[in-house]
Amino acid sequence: MQAKQCFVELRCKECGRAYPKEAIHVCELDFGPLEAVYDYQAIRSCLSRRSLAARPPSMWKYREFLPLEGDPVVGLHVGFTPLVRARRLGEALGIRELYIKNDTVNHPTLSFKDRVVAVALSRAKELGLSTVACASTGNLANSLAANAASAGFQSYVLIPADLERSKVMSSLIYGARVIGIRGPYDQVNRLCSEIAGKYSWGFVNINLRPYYAEGSKTMGFEIVEQLGWSLPTHTVIPMASGSLLTKIAKAYRELVQTGLVEEKRFAVHGAQAAGCSPITEAFRRGSDLIRPVPQPSTIAKSLAIGSPADGYYAVRTIRETGGAAEAASDEEILHGIELLAETEGIFAETAGGVTVACAQKLAKAGRLSGPGPVVLCITAHGLKTPDALEPRLPEPPVIAPSLREFDALVAVDGEALWT
Amino acid sequence: MQAKQCFVELRCKECGRAYPKEAIHVCELDFGPLEAVYDYQAIRSCLSRRSLAARPPSMWKYREFLPLEGDPVVGLHVGFTPLVRARRLGEALGIRELYIKNDTVNHPTLSFKDRVVAVALSRAKELGLSTVACASTGNLANSLAANAASAGFQSYVLIPADLERSKVMSSLIYGARVIGIRGPYDQVNRLCSEIAGKYSWGFVNINLRPYYAEGSKTMGFEIVEQLGWSLPTHTVIPMASGSLLTKIAKAYRELVQTGLVEEKRFAVHGAQAAGCSPITEAFRRGSDLIRPVPQPSTIAKSLAIGSPADGYYAVRTIRETGGAAEAASDEEILHGIELLAETEGIFAETAGGVTVACAQKLAKAGRLSGPGPVVLCITAHGLKTPDALEPRLPEPPVIAPSLREFDALVAVDGEALWT
Repeated sequence: MQAKQCFVELRCKECGRAYPKEAIHVCELDFGPLEAVYDYQAIRSCLSRRSLAARPPSMWKYREFLPLEGDPVVGLHVGFTPLVRARRLGEALGIRELYIKNDTVNHPTLSFKDRVVAVALSRAKELGLSTVACASTGNLANSLAANAASAGFQSYVLIPADLERSKVMSSLIYGARVIGIRGPYDQVNRLCSEIAGKYSWGFVNINLRPYYAEGSKTMGFEIVEQLGWSLPTHTVIPMASGSLLTKIAKAYRELVQTGLVEEKRFAVHGAQAAGCSPITEAFRRGSDLIRPVPQPSTIAKSLAIGSPADGYYAVRTIRETGGAAEAASDEEILHGIELLAETEGIFAETAGGVTVACAQKLAKAGRLSGPGPVVLCITAHGLKTPDALEPRLPEPPVIAPSLREFDALVAVDGEALWT
Repeated sequence: MQAKQCFVELRCKECGRAYPKEAIHVCELDFGPLEAVYDYQAIRSCLSRRSLAARPPSMWKYREFLPLEGDPVVGLHVGFTPLVRARRLGEALGIRELYIKNDTVNHPTLSFKDRVVAVALSRAKELGLSTVACASTGNLANSLAANAASAGFQSYVLIPADLERSKVMSSLIYGARVIGIRGPYDQVNRLCSEIAGKYSWGFVNINLRPYYAEGSKTMGFEIVEQLGWSLPTHTVIPMASGSLLTKIAKAYRELVQTGLVEEKRFAVHGAQAAGCSPITEAFRRGSDLIRPVPQPSTIAKSLAIGSPADGYYAVRTIRETGGAAEAASDEEILHGIELLAETEGIFAETAGGVTVACAQKLAKAGRLSGPGPVVLCITAHGLKTPDALEPRLPEPPVIAPSLREFDALVAVDGEALWT
């Protein structure tokens, strides 16, 4: 892929001060987050719908919108996951034109985190780093471990010590050095900031964050291309740090700005677990001040960030676009997972249950109305959180390999047996 | 997709007798398997590399080579999984140009079975069936349950009662009626044949088998397109029934026959678990007579078919193409899974470990030599068989959220700590 160089510099999101393209993430003056800046005129002149359609199906189609200096070298097959027309779920939720953006089948680790890690590690190679690391609630750990392995990085993964065993295993298998930290995610994250200051490692969601975060935009680019170059009217997005939501909105705006899609009203809506919903609470209070949740308590551990780094920007983006924010209880989350599986054959982890449950509430409240498509972002696979569902699923009946026993089994009321 | 109708009829693979396109699978005269027959002249006249490149990335690109009468209606997003250039694994195995065909991220259920189920259920709709079913070692169960749910079929899934709980759960979640059968897979399969004869259900791998099995060809078509329209020199393929191997070879031949790729020698190699290797044993004996394994004993349960339906054809295909067959012990399988994860960041289920371990043996024996690409078919994700790996993975160290504790941890010999 011979891509034109369109990434200009980093810039403070608050004061606009420019910074060089290094492993830094906050403004020295006001501690505002640094963000990648592009030459949109250059992008406009070198990209068209036709040229994009001809590129291989991965997130790197949109390479000019990503903060690299050369060609990507890590995660070349990440992204371009299916956008599934969800008629049966749409009927259940009362939404006419519903789609699922299905990152449960993202290569290689079955979550949208492969997108952000692919950018961060490609940039880490450009910056000459050899050890990469992260603080994670699980999905990022898996993705960092896998992508680091494929690219020959040494990797360290710091996680809350009480994380689901399946997510721990899915980092260990790739040879990552996994360390459990006693305490919630926010304390893991604080420790990682200290480590990043002392060791010259690339922490993908700390000192590489300006590069890392931009990877989330590709979910938005793909949705628009897969809708036939049209902005969705509503997009429902799970929120942990809040970054995914702000970046999908940024992607939509960038496509308008570069003339790839027609301008149109779009609303982005945020979904959180009731046991850790600082962003949704701020939205409900009509404030953009995030009150941290000191002890998150939810089965949706991948969303359990009590002090969301991008919460402020998320709540502002929701309001600016005319969206809303919701929260779902553990029971509603489990029901959401089951509903998605039974109607669309897609098995999501707890964060997916949050998104479906919140979409149901938003639809009921009339927040997803109007013409045009509604997209739910389903961010990771259900086999990552099997423990959450396990107790709800029945033991299947067991019979001998005999037609007579089978006949007897199906002759009794099937509904009673299997539900 | 306006595809030309190129599917002609079913035909006995042994005597060549023609049959109508119904829910039937064996010849009345000699009990030979029925196979789909196409008008290759018609395919040649309507398909080109260019027209294929322009189609959306799914298995349905190759729709003209599949046994449907109309457009597909189930599993529209299945397939076109990544073909990954595996440099690090290649180094470890001593293979110069190695690729992984990565069906661990197949939509929706993370295995190649989504390919066969998508064809079988699309055909089931055409035949007016409303209940679908299968005998399964796990992956097929998951795929049938999910795809049936998305298409509104009632589904029954019959599995050996001792199957991995994670695979059982992954069928229950979609609302399938799961029945455990006391006995090995072959007894489950025999019971299903009896049920299929009595109930008018579509058993995807019994009375719908001629349609179902053709879906496996798409893995072969995609490999060739992703190699830039070139046949791989060697393809290593896991064998359960043996069907996948025969169908990938069929796909390669069909592409030659329709002029889409240049003729070239290609070898297909079969991989089995040592605890259930009836096809490999026949190959080693120089026979094409399959001696059934009455009590399979291997951690690779998805390959544990003691009486492989297509074993005879698989061993013949291996010989005709100049390939070989290998078998891997449980210990080698686990090592294969770890090697793939640590070098390429791809986490495969036990069958993937079988493929990697057998490829290692084949390479060592000089069976994968010569110029040109070597492709390993990795057929399902590791989160489907977490129990196999669990005991081998260490408990990660746990520390307080303190920089001092972290410093102390990484100061000691990291290798000793994490391996």
